[in-house]
Amino acid sequence: MLDDAQLREYHDAGFLVVPDVLTPRDLAGLRDEVERLYRADHPGRVLEKDGTTIRGVHGCHQVSEVFSRLVRLPALLMPAEQLLASKVYVHQSKVNAKRALAGDVWPWHQDYIFWEREDGMPAPLVTNVALLLDDATPYNGPLLFLPGSHHMGTLPTERRGAAGGEESWKSNLAADLDYALTAGQLASMVARFGMRAATGSAGSMVLFDPRLVHGSGTNMSPYDRQLLIITYNSVDNVPDEPSRRPEFLSASDTTPLAPLVGGLWS
Amino acid sequence: MLDDAQLREYHDAGFLVVPDVLTPRDLAGLRDEVERLYRADHPGRVLEKDGTTIRGVHGCHQVSEVFSRLVRLPALLMPAEQLLASKVYVHQSKVNAKRALAGDVWPWHQDYIFWEREDGMPAPLVTNVALLLDDATPYNGPLLFLPGSHHMGTLPTERRGAAGGEESWKSNLAADLDYALTAGQLASMVARFGMRAATGSAGSMVLFDPRLVHGSGTNMSPYDRQLLIITYNSVDNVPDEPSRRPEFLSASDTTPLAPLVGGLWS
Repeated sequence: MLDDAQLREYHDAGFLVVPDVLTPRDLAGLRDEVERLYRADHPGRVLEKDGTTIRGVHGCHQVSEVFSRLVRLPALLMPAEQLLASKVYVHQSKVNAKRALAGDVWPWHQDYIFWEREDGMPAPLVTNVALLLDDATPYNGPLLFLPGSHHMGTLPTERRGAAGGEESWKSNLAADLDYALTAGQLASMVARFGMRAATGSAGSMVLFDPRLVHGSGTNMSPYDRQLLIITYNSVDNVPDEPSRRPEFLSASDTTPLAPLVGGLWS
Repeated sequence: MLDDAQLREYHDAGFLVVPDVLTPRDLAGLRDEVERLYRADHPGRVLEKDGTTIRGVHGCHQVSEVFSRLVRLPALLMPAEQLLASKVYVHQSKVNAKRALAGDVWPWHQDYIFWEREDGMPAPLVTNVALLLDDATPYNGPLLFLPGSHHMGTLPTERRGAAGGEESWKSNLAADLDYALTAGQLASMVARFGMRAATGSAGSMVLFDPRLVHGSGTNMSPYDRQLLIITYNSVDNVPDEPSRRPEFLSASDTTPLAPLVGGLWS
């Protein structure tokens, strides 16, 4: 559970970094499992623009036994329940691979606008629990935040592509996002909020608000910067209708999660 | 002139940052002049992959009166003469625009290999004098160095594209370089040398060795990160034959530079 100072930091800044959440053994095992998912044939698997480098894998908890246990790990699940003051389920899970020298940009955006407009999620009663699978440094494309920007709520953002196309969700897994923020919006927000990189050691947890403005740059280092993100939604915040997006982007199983008893590998 | 500690730092690390070299007035004037060059019709003007954003301008001292005076400014010229222990001329001058939210990567590379193999420069008796036209921060794609990597000399690097084509130099102004280093080379070098970002205030000067391994990432900030680079070559190191590359990449005027008397704007 998070203490009062941590809760205050999450609510004030919109994010919180908690070091040493994963044991070295769990970290090593998860990295192996992620490599297996990169190679597996799965519609949630996405490549970079070069057509060969893995960019990420979506819907991990739906295709991996290990991930289906991980999302129930008390160290992740309890803080999510605490922040949302309710039972939760997983709306999305993914790994951003951000490969050495090849991992591309995620433009500045807010998450909730995608979940609201594309998936019909009623309210931002949802949180991201991210795990650093590698050290995140200033050089390997760390998550970048505008601290406090979640207080602005959902920003007016025009959808860039034509809405409603059969596979219009695809661009939202690539480096061009439909709801990316404009340079004008960012200039005034950065002047007001500043920028912060969520750097830290592998095994750290980063919790962040679904309205927090974030992005990440290219990975200029020869080391991968893999980030695993679990999006927990409140069971009081289930979309009324099924999403038009694939299951691996908007999970239909909204059963409240029960804490895992035993370890990840049992 | 550089003092002994500065000279030692340049020789040990391969680079040296000197703050407050440009006055606020000169800085503002240079930024205006650069904006003018971005808009002017000139073969050394290069766009980003998007086909609209300015990426940079090459051969500035050949087309701008202000730049032709700037390269003779004692604050830049004297350190270059000191480092190369001779009179010097300008082999190249350029501005990397690295525009807000749009400025793309420069892959990891060494400069001298281009000048040796493409321009026939006999030896690395050459130095880069860069001026920060904007603050360089961890977020706007600062110059990244592997400190000390110049001690390895010119690294064995295969030319990527077919050599000798009519306009084969063009790729070397874009985000794909012919002599970019491989992931394998970089992994061992970063383990040995580490990485450093040349961050600093607008108006600072960054001197760096032509064999120093460097690159830069995307600009994720809403602020430009413009960098002006003057490459001074020793008059004892003039290529024997004219380069096959355009004048704006390999200047044919090798007349030793005389220090400027008076200011940039007189």
